[in-house]
Amino acid sequence: MTVVLSTISAARQWMRTERSAGKTIGLVPTMGALHEGHLSLFRQARQRCDCVIASIFVNPLQFGPTEDYDHYPRNLDHDMTLAEQEKLNAIFHPEAREMYPQPPQITVSPGRFGELLCGVSRPGHFQGVATVVAKLFNILQPNVAFFGQKDAQQAIIVQRMAQDLNFPVAIEICPIVREPDGLAMSSRNQYLNAADRVRATVLYQALRRAERLIRSGVRDAIQVEREMQEVIATTPGVELDYARVVDRQSLQDVSEVTGEVLLAVAARFGRTRLIDNMIVVPEG
Amino acid sequence: MTVVLSTISAARQWMRTERSAGKTIGLVPTMGALHEGHLSLFRQARQRCDCVIASIFVNPLQFGPTEDYDHYPRNLDHDMTLAEQEKLNAIFHPEAREMYPQPPQITVSPGRFGELLCGVSRPGHFQGVATVVAKLFNILQPNVAFFGQKDAQQAIIVQRMAQDLNFPVAIEICPIVREPDGLAMSSRNQYLNAADRVRATVLYQALRRAERLIRSGVRDAIQVEREMQEVIATTPGVELDYARVVDRQSLQDVSEVTGEVLLAVAARFGRTRLIDNMIVVPEG
Repeated sequence: MTVVLSTISAARQWMRTERSAGKTIGLVPTMGALHEGHLSLFRQARQRCDCVIASIFVNPLQFGPTEDYDHYPRNLDHDMTLAEQEKLNAIFHPEAREMYPQPPQITVSPGRFGELLCGVSRPGHFQGVATVVAKLFNILQPNVAFFGQKDAQQAIIVQRMAQDLNFPVAIEICPIVREPDGLAMSSRNQYLNAADRVRATVLYQALRRAERLIRSGVRDAIQVEREMQEVIATTPGVELDYARVVDRQSLQDVSEVTGEVLLAVAARFGRTRLIDNMIVVPEG
Repeated sequence: MTVVLSTISAARQWMRTERSAGKTIGLVPTMGALHEGHLSLFRQARQRCDCVIASIFVNPLQFGPTEDYDHYPRNLDHDMTLAEQEKLNAIFHPEAREMYPQPPQITVSPGRFGELLCGVSRPGHFQGVATVVAKLFNILQPNVAFFGQKDAQQAIIVQRMAQDLNFPVAIEICPIVREPDGLAMSSRNQYLNAADRVRATVLYQALRRAERLIRSGVRDAIQVEREMQEVIATTPGVELDYARVVDRQSLQDVSEVTGEVLLAVAARFGRTRLIDNMIVVPEG
């Protein structure tokens, strides 16, 4: 049985009971609309921790005024079926007014990490993410928290937040889970119509093209970026947001591919904005 | 015996040992140069918690480039004597590179609370304060943390941070401790030469004057502010920073004194900047 906790005090009570029984707690923060990507996080968490809690909370603070907060897919029954199947111990599913009884004044600032890549077209997004993750850490006090590599910038920010603010939480980043045709799993994929669903594979194709270039010896980051941009931007009906080659840790632009790099892409398919990424280590 | 902990891992180890023995932990964050104000915090903490730890850390992040970080009084021997006398269980005394092994990117932003009052002449100060307090909370995981009302804006920000970010820490704000002539205790009082030490009582005199005005029925905040400004600014050798009547919770300006207000003053005596405040509830 998966327990559903809808208040902060119930969640704290659950956490204290598990902790005092000597159990380690794994947290998987989600916005619901669970898919195979989330399930892989749950399985990792079960392997590493005695009990696993997933939060399901569509966090208003990380959505811009013109974004899809109102339309973001919410289906608790479906999510609960998956949570039971995966034998989660608990779901933390608060309402927005439980998490934000008053407009938050004190927030977590991601600094320049929040201004790069997705931060350009989503100002305030990563401040919202960092703030809600800090709140979840403080409410649930997990030993380990699990995030997907799919949201690469979020993963870096959460890791860096845990370091910079000394959260007593280990951060585990789990690999991207893809559809058979390469599309990265995302709750937003269900927004896509049939034509956009086909087009959406262009993100993974661009990343693979860039990976092959680097493996073939290309070291000029601008050249690699141009190839990714071309793959995406020349597809009709796709609006490129960015296609970048950045340092895997600092997320800063690199001019030459000398160490581990993050290839990061974002584009719009109709009104749906999707992202994808790949970590590549140049050989030799 | 008061244990001195100089690394984060030693501090965490100490905390876990005390916690697993079922003890509650009280934290008093300080920058050292301990005085009677700090001692009153220690005594409150001892009354409420099973064991008490004080941090002594001059936090570089909360000092501006032209401020007194390098000259801030540091005297660990003196502080340790007082800590032993007050039977503190532990002192957490890390070096700056232990707390900031790399320049912090992810910080706690105090929002508009950081831009008011002292935030005007000390931009970034409260971001530094909020960030180091969040770090101390995460490292030491106290049940209760004790702060002085002397730093009223800091107290409000820390309370609001604990609420907004759901820190599992109760915040206790303790009354201002004053010298016999009314000067609020502060580590920076030791910067004052004899003439400035005499002049410094003007802050408390201004607050008392404002308090009497409000008690006598004056409700016009501007009039009260003018009287405080006059008391301070007409004293030769004193440079007024601000003298304000603000809402006790929001720190926003009030035009009329209808509820609990915070009278807050700041001024420079030579190169020494001092602050003081008083909470006043109008009668009737």
